[in-house]
Parts: sequence; C-alpha cells; structure tokens
Amino acid sequence: MSVNLDSMEMRKMIDPEDMLSYVEQFDEQCNQGERLAVDFPLPRYDDIKHVIICGMGGSAIGGDILRAYASREAALPIEVVRNYILPRYVDSKSLVVVSSYSGNTEETLSSYEEAKKRSAKIVAITTGGKLAQCCEEDGFPYLRIPAGYAPRAALGFSFMPLLVFMQRWGFIDGQKQAIAEMKRTITETIQSNRFSTPESENPAKQLARRLFDTIPVIYAGEGAFQPVAARWRTQCNENAKVFARDFSVPEMNHNEILGWKNPASILCRFHVIYLLDKEYHEQIHKRFAVMESILQSSVHGVTKISSTGNGLLARLFSLIVLGDFTSVYLAYLYRQDPTPIPAIDQLKKALAQ
Amino acid sequence: MSVNLDSMEMRKMIDPEDMLSYVEQFDEQCNQGERLAVDFPLPRYDDIKHVIICGMGGSAIGGDILRAYASREAALPIEVVRNYILPRYVDSKSLVVVSSYSGNTEETLSSYEEAKKRSAKIVAITTGGKLAQCCEEDGFPYLRIPAGYAPRAALGFSFMPLLVFMQRWGFIDGQKQAIAEMKRTITETIQSNRFSTPESENPAKQLARRLFDTIPVIYAGEGAFQPVAARWRTQCNENAKVFARDFSVPEMNHNEILGWKNPASILCRFHVIYLLDKEYHEQIHKRFAVMESILQSSVHGVTKISSTGNGLLARLFSLIVLGDFTSVYLAYLYRQDPTPIPAIDQLKKALAQ
Repeated sequence: MSVNLDSMEMRKMIDPEDMLSYVEQFDEQCNQGERLAVDFPLPRYDDIKHVIICGMGGSAIGGDILRAYASREAALPIEVVRNYILPRYVDSKSLVVVSSYSGNTEETLSSYEEAKKRSAKIVAITTGGKLAQCCEEDGFPYLRIPAGYAPRAALGFSFMPLLVFMQRWGFIDGQKQAIAEMKRTITETIQSNRFSTPESENPAKQLARRLFDTIPVIYAGEGAFQPVAARWRTQCNENAKVFARDFSVPEMNHNEILGWKNPASILCRFHVIYLLDKEYHEQIHKRFAVMESILQSSVHGVTKISSTGNGLLARLFSLIVLGDFTSVYLAYLYRQDPTPIPAIDQLKKALAQ
Repeated sequence: MSVNLDSMEMRKMIDPEDMLSYVEQFDEQCNQGERLAVDFPLPRYDDIKHVIICGMGGSAIGGDILRAYASREAALPIEVVRNYILPRYVDSKSLVVVSSYSGNTEETLSSYEEAKKRSAKIVAITTGGKLAQCCEEDGFPYLRIPAGYAPRAALGFSFMPLLVFMQRWGFIDGQKQAIAEMKRTITETIQSNRFSTPESENPAKQLARRLFDTIPVIYAGEGAFQPVAARWRTQCNENAKVFARDFSVPEMNHNEILGWKNPASILCRFHVIYLLDKEYHEQIHKRFAVMESILQSSVHGVTKISSTGNGLLARLFSLIVLGDFTSVYLAYLYRQDPTPIPAIDQLKKALAQ
C-alpha cells in the first residue's frame, strides 16, 4: 500500500525524530545563524590573498554555496577543501575558515592543523568538540553554533555565518536586502511545501511521488546553482537513503549526454530533474531545452523546476528548501526514518578501531 | 552471442575509425605533446597571482589533471573554469590558459573574450578554429596542436603542454624525470592492455566484461586521483555510451554512502570501481576498506584497481590509460562504434539554429 503523505500518523511513525520540522523551521534557523554571525567579534585581516573553506558533507556544502554565490563579486579566489591536506599555496596570507558541525570531523581537524602550520589566518565555525578545544588552546576565534541538529539539518548555521563574515571582511557587498528577501522566499517556499499543505497542492510531495523507485539525476546550470544540485543529491542520500547523481550544464553536454544510452534497461528507471533559473546564460537555457528530447527517449521522466524569488540568494534558497522537503517526503515513501545514518555510524566505528 | 574481444574481425567491424589505436599510441602522443610545448616560444610573465584554465569536456579534463597534480607544489591557486563566464577575481594578474581542441567551443570562446576584457595574460592551446583566429588578431600566443583527433583521444595534446608550461613558468619544479617515468609506465600499461594481449591476460578486457550491462561507479581518493575517476566516467560516456558516476573518498563517506540502499532493485546493477594509490592518506585507505562491506551487500560487484609506477605522474597515467582501454572494450561489448558522438552532434546542430 502506498504511503499517504498527508497523514500525521504516518509522519509520526516514520519520522519519530521529526527531521521534517527542521526543514519547516529553516527560515527561523537562517535568522538565528545570521544574528550569531553579526554579533560575533570577528577579527579583521589585512592583505588576504585567498579564502579557503575546510569542511566535509553538510558543513562543506555551505562553503560551496557561499563560493558559488560570492564568486560573482569577490576579488579573490575562494576554494572549498574536502580533504585531510591543503593545497600548497595556502600560507600566511590565506584566510582559512574551518567548518565542522560536530567539531570532531577528522578530515577537517587535519586541515586545521595544516593551516596552523602554514601560519594561515584561521576562524572556525562549530558547536564545540575538538575543534573548539584546539581553537581555544591555539588562540583562534571560533563561532559557536547551536548543538543538537543533524549537520545536514543545520545549513543555516554553516552558510549564514560564511555569508555574513564575507560581507564583514569586505569581500562582498552588503547583504542586508538580499538576506531579507531570501528569508521571505524561504518562508513562502515552506508554506507551499510544508506537511500541512496537502499533496494535491504540494510541489515537494508531488515530486517525491514521481521520484519514488527511481534514481534521481539533478542537473543545474554551471555556476551558482551547481551546489544546489549537489545539496539535492546529498539530501536524497542522507534522508531518503537513495542513490542520486548531480551534474552541470554545459559540461554534461560534452560527455554525460552520450551516456544516456546504455544500459537502457537501467536508465529507464532514472528520473532527471532540471533546476532552472531565469538568469542562466541564454545558451544554457537553450541547452536544457535541446537536451530534453535526447533524455526523454531514455529516462523515466524529466521534471523541470524553476527557482522563485528575485535576487540570486533568494532564488538559490527557493530550490534548496524545495529539495530538502522533497528528500524527506521521499524518505517517507520508502518508509525510511530520515534521521538515522547507519552506514556513517558503521564507518566511524570501524575507523575508530 | 557475446562479443569476442580478441577478434580482429570484430574490432574492424565495430570500430571502423579505430578509436582503439589512439589509446594504443598514447605514449607517442604524449611525446609529441611534450616536444611541441618545449619548443613553443612561451612568454614569461611577472607577478602572476593565479592560473585559470578554461575549457570543456576533453580539453578541461587535462586542466583538472594538471591542477590536481600541480596543487601539491604550485604556490598559487589554479582553477579550471567550464563556463561562459569567469570568476570576478580574474584580472590583469591572472594567467588564463584557454584550451579548446577544435578552437570553436562556444563556452571557451566566451571565456576567452571575458579574459581579454579583464586584461588577463592569455595563452591558448588549440588546433585552429576561431580561437586561433582571435589569438592572431588580438596578439595572444597560441600553441597549435595536431588536428584530426577526437578531443577525448587527444589528452596528450591538452595535458602535456599544460604540464610543460607550468614548469617553464616556474610554478612547478622540473618534470623531466617524472615525464620519462610516466612515458615508460604508459608504454607498459599499453602492453598489458592492448588489443593483441588476449582477454585471459588483459586486465582492461576483463574489467570491461565485468562492467557490461551495469552502471559503473568510480571512486578515487580526494585530490590528484579525482580527475582520473572523472576521466574514466567521461570515457565510458563517450566511447561506450554508458552512463556512469565518479566521486571521491572521503567526501562520499559523508553522504553518498547512505544512498546505497534505495532503490535496491536498480543498485544491484551498479558496479563499483575503486581507483587506489599507494600514497593515499592512510585514513583514505582505511575508508575504502571499511566501505566495501557496506557496498557489497547492495551492488553488482566491487573491483579494486591500483595504480602502477613510481612517481605520481606515472601513477596517475597508469590508471588513465587503463580506463581508456576499458572504455573502448566496453564499447565493443555493447557493439557500439566508439567514435561517433550523435547526441553531441544533435545538440550542436540544434544550438546553431
């Protein structure tokens, strides 16, 4: 029997730790993340040549979104590092933001140590853990964010501080208006897609229904929206425990587009999602349109979703929030509790031995 | 009836334009690419702050490999841009290498124009086309590489010049020994995997057999080997017309590992390939080992492949060449002529209208 996405009984049974409520309260979380960052006694640095954001998983994606958003404006390179080591160029003129929700991510702690050795400027964002300890011992500032969330459900605490810090450092212009509009758009997106909106009027519930029993493949335009597609993938992975793929146009037009042929009996169970935005380069719009006829003959379906809102920040988050909702509803359809992450727990346990 | 990978009659029938011969002669191509770059009258620039490599598809992957290889040594950031536009920070102190095999890639021509507007230093690598014309008109140097190859079959002409140029500019140390060892390793890899080596002794033919009728998912350690996994994917896409996925460890341990659950009836037809290297961080080795038990219960199989050779450059190319061979043999198993790229031709035609 298929799951009734409007049933509160179902929600309570499948989602006892209430992952959905974090998505439903994401506007408030962004507010809180912003305020924490605005009030933080942030050091100012002179003569910074590049910004490095170190993190993994849910913490790194905040860095990806920041990087993609800020690279239109920032007069210096921003790189996100998901590794134990740092690129060779990191030195005393690098500003390294170390982001680990738990404060105990081993890769991130390793890159923190390397940044320290290279005499980089360091600021951390964490709930505590070893990272907070190290910062205290070493005299580096860190923003303490609220504990008790799954890291993926704390994007407002990983992204908003990065955005506010970049502005306070003068790398990007004032974001007050952009943030205000972003929060309005998030609130509207929540209203359309929250649990109390019935499936007949709820885009996220409808999309989850379409994605059920398929492999979702999420394509976005290269640039600012690429990390949004990645966020959709990771939320499908972590909440619904579904394998997914994200990639960008135009690059996929140069290789992956040819792959939509074999093995045909598997590809017919893949569902392609276009994440579209009004400000994509006109050729990217054209490419998405032309690709469709090639894809349609191979796949389960192609669903087109357009960002809403006016400014870029609002448009990015309109799609992030829609994806977050979709991933939780998809978990419900698989009767999969979205909160536990057994494979990661298993990995961590084995690695600790 | 299954395809006999040792039959010359089969090869001639399925591969009339002889894509396999380009892989079998890749050592000679690297030689030629190196010589062209060594002899090129390369300008020297002072006070360069960053290197940008602009390209798409087969040209961009050379940039990815260069970036991953050089970032251990280079004291400045290197970024690969696959887009119509450039990040804001690109200015007169940026060195922009514009790489387009045909010289007519629209995204790359667009980023060339933008680099020019920003007064960046520009060097191009191309067989001709509009890019060569623009460079001549605008007075920028360009290395003319041999025409007549499929861009993906010309990696020696896109990568080797980048490597030699980076050395000649002083961004990385002398590569003479590393290149000599790399070429020896490529020759050895060709000997083991070329057509005349029968399937019973040929790792690439055996691997292609295992990958047939599956979705290949290629995992490499974050860092230098990530672009190698991407190359495997694009070669599967373009030669065998097979959908594939590439990703990196440890990042996949934070999200994608959870996705190996749903939909189970599709995932059992995915085949995971580990690209392993002796110099991965010890925790990355451990992660690959621990992941295996989680993956084994979901997938068609897990195949582990280790790089050969001594230096990093040789080790990278030992796996690239193995992947290139595998992708062509996989094309044969699908009875798919590896050379034509109908979906890309269709796209280009529609875009030109």
